[in-house]
Amino acid sequence: MKGLWLENQQLKLRTDIPVPEPKLGEALVRVLRAGICNTDLELKRGYYSYAGILGHEFVGVVEQGPENLINKRVVGEINAACGHCRFCRRGQPTHCENRTVLGIVNRHGAFADYLCLPIENLHPVPDNVPTDIATFTEPLAAALEIQQQVVLCSDDRVLVVGDGKLGQLVAQTLALTGCDLLVIGRHPEKLTNLAARGIKTGLVDAVTDKAFDISVDCTGNPEGFAIARRALRPRGTLVMKSTYAGNLSLDASSLVVDEITLIGSRCGPFPAALELLAAEKVDVKPLIHSHYPLTEALAAFEEAQCRGVLKVLLEVGEV
Amino acid sequence: MKGLWLENQQLKLRTDIPVPEPKLGEALVRVLRAGICNTDLELKRGYYSYAGILGHEFVGVVEQGPENLINKRVVGEINAACGHCRFCRRGQPTHCENRTVLGIVNRHGAFADYLCLPIENLHPVPDNVPTDIATFTEPLAAALEIQQQVVLCSDDRVLVVGDGKLGQLVAQTLALTGCDLLVIGRHPEKLTNLAARGIKTGLVDAVTDKAFDISVDCTGNPEGFAIARRALRPRGTLVMKSTYAGNLSLDASSLVVDEITLIGSRCGPFPAALELLAAEKVDVKPLIHSHYPLTEALAAFEEAQCRGVLKVLLEVGEV
Ligand SMILES: [Zn+2]
Ligand SMILES: [Zn+2]
Ligand SMILES: [Zn+2]
Ligand SMILES: [Zn+2]
Repeated sequence: MKGLWLENQQLKLRTDIPVPEPKLGEALVRVLRAGICNTDLELKRGYYSYAGILGHEFVGVVEQGPENLINKRVVGEINAACGHCRFCRRGQPTHCENRTVLGIVNRHGAFADYLCLPIENLHPVPDNVPTDIATFTEPLAAALEIQQQVVLCSDDRVLVVGDGKLGQLVAQTLALTGCDLLVIGRHPEKLTNLAARGIKTGLVDAVTDKAFDISVDCTGNPEGFAIARRALRPRGTLVMKSTYAGNLSLDASSLVVDEITLIGSRCGPFPAALELLAAEKVDVKPLIHSHYPLTEALAAFEEAQCRGVLKVLLEVGEV
Repeated sequence: MKGLWLENQQLKLRTDIPVPEPKLGEALVRVLRAGICNTDLELKRGYYSYAGILGHEFVGVVEQGPENLINKRVVGEINAACGHCRFCRRGQPTHCENRTVLGIVNRHGAFADYLCLPIENLHPVPDNVPTDIATFTEPLAAALEIQQQVVLCSDDRVLVVGDGKLGQLVAQTLALTGCDLLVIGRHPEKLTNLAARGIKTGLVDAVTDKAFDISVDCTGNPEGFAIARRALRPRGTLVMKSTYAGNLSLDASSLVVDEITLIGSRCGPFPAALELLAAEKVDVKPLIHSHYPLTEALAAFEEAQCRGVLKVLLEVGEV
C-alpha cells in the first residue's frame, strides 16, 4: 500500500508498504481522509524521535473488525492502551505507560491506505457529518479537554492566545460555554473566521492588563506563553494546549506569589466532539485550506508549513 | 525604638527609629517574639528590592487599637490590602494589587519593638498557645494554603520535597489529612522530627518512580522542583510552595503530554493555623533551633543562614 513515511527527518512517499495485519482486539481501517497537524510538522522537524507512517487525524472505513463497525465510517482515538497498567486500571488510558500513539509513538499512522487501531478506540461517524468535517474530531476533542480540566463559569474572562487551527477550535468550544472570551493572534484574516461567529478577537498586543481568569496558550511558543501568563489575574489558570520546542524559561517565583495554576492539556473526549460536529455547533469548514491526494502528500506538507495556512487535508480513499 | 534595618543588602541594628504611628484602621503592636524565615534571608541576598525593617513572623501585644484587642497577644496576616481594588472586592485581599506586605513590600516589619498592621489582619492568640509556638502561625497558615488549593483524598500518594522549616510544617499539615505521605530531604537529623510523628521519610534519592498524585516542592531550588516533577504520575499536581531565585527552566512539553498541573501557593488561613496550634495537632517545638535577643539580631541572622539550622527566634519584648 501507499504511505507517507518519516525517517531521519525525511519524508518519503512509499508504495511498497504491506497492508498491516490487525492484532487481537484491533480493527483494520481503510483511510478516507486525513489531516496534517502541527504535531506532524514537529515530528518532521525532529522534535520527537519517530520513524514510520505519519498521521493521526483521520476518517476511515472499517474493513476488518466487529460486525457492527464493518463498512462504517469511523474516527479513532490515537492512544492505544495496554489495558492492564496502573493508568489503564484507573481509567486513564490516554496516559497508559505502555501506550503506542497513532503516527506519533511506535504505531504506524493514518497517512496511508490502511491503519490498525484497537476496536475500543473507534467511534462511528454520524451520517450527517461529512468526511472532511469528521477529520477534525481528534483536534476538536483535544480542544474540549480543557473543559474536562478547568471549571468554567459564565462570567469568567477567558483569553485564547493563537489564531491557528488549534486556537480556533479551542475558541469555538470555549465560546459555547458562555464565558467572556477574547481570542488574540497575529493574523487578522484568521481572526475574521471567529469574529464572524460573534467571538471577540484582537491582535496580540490587545491585552495589556492582568485581567483574565483563564488563559489558554495555543501557540506552543515562548512568546505566546508569556502573553498568556501576563494576562492572568492572581489565582488565574493558564492552560498549555500545545507542546513547546525545547525548554521554557519561567519566572516561577511570580507563579508562587500570584498563586497561578498551570495545566498541561492533551487528548480529549471523542464522543463529545462528534456530538458538536453532528449538531453543527462548531464550524470547522473555514479551517480547511486545501485538499491533496495522498500521492501528493509531500506538496501538501510543503503547503501546511507555510505561514497563514490552516488545515491541509489528504484525500486517501473513497467511501 | 530598635529595629533590624535592611538597605542595599546590608543589615543594621538601628536604635534611632521612631515608634510608628498607626494609620486609620491600623493597630500599634508591641512585638514580643519574631521568627527568621527564608524569605528574610532572600531579601537580604537581594532577591527582591526592599528597604526598611525586616520580619513578618511575629507575636505581639496590641497597645493602640480596638478595645477588644488592647493588651491581647496577637499574630498578624502580613498582606495589608487596600480594600477597594478588584481583588479586594472579590475577597482575595492577599492578592490586592495595592497591597503592602509586612517586612517585604513597602511596610516596615516585625524585627523591631513596634509595628503597625490593619486591625482586620490581627488574630488573638489562644491563651494556651505559648508565644514561641504562636510565632509559627504565619508559616503554618502558608502550609495550610495547599489544602485550600488542592483537594486531597485519603488514598492520594503525596510527596513533600524538602525537610526545612516549611517542608516540616507542610508535612505535618498534610499528614493530618490521612493521605499517603512521604517526605524526602537531605538531612537525616531533620527527617527524624517527622519520623517521630509517624510520617514516612526518606533521602532525596528514595523516589525513583512516577508514582505520586501530588508533590509539593518546599525547597525553592531547581533540583527540588525537578524531583517533585519526576515523581508525579500523569495528571498529577505539583505545588510550588517556595519562591525560586531566578528563572526555572522547564520541560513544558512533558507537562502537556502528561497533563500535569502546577500550582503556586503562598499565604494561607490564620484562623485554621491557630486552631491547629491550640489543639496541639502540629508540633512546632522541634523546629526551634535557638533564641536571640533583638539586640543580637545580626548574630541570629548569621546562624539562620547555616546549613541544617531550622527556626531562629528573636526575643523582642516581654508580655
Ligand atoms: Zn494533532
Ligand atoms: Zn496501560
Ligand atoms: Zn516567611
Ligand atoms: Zn486591594
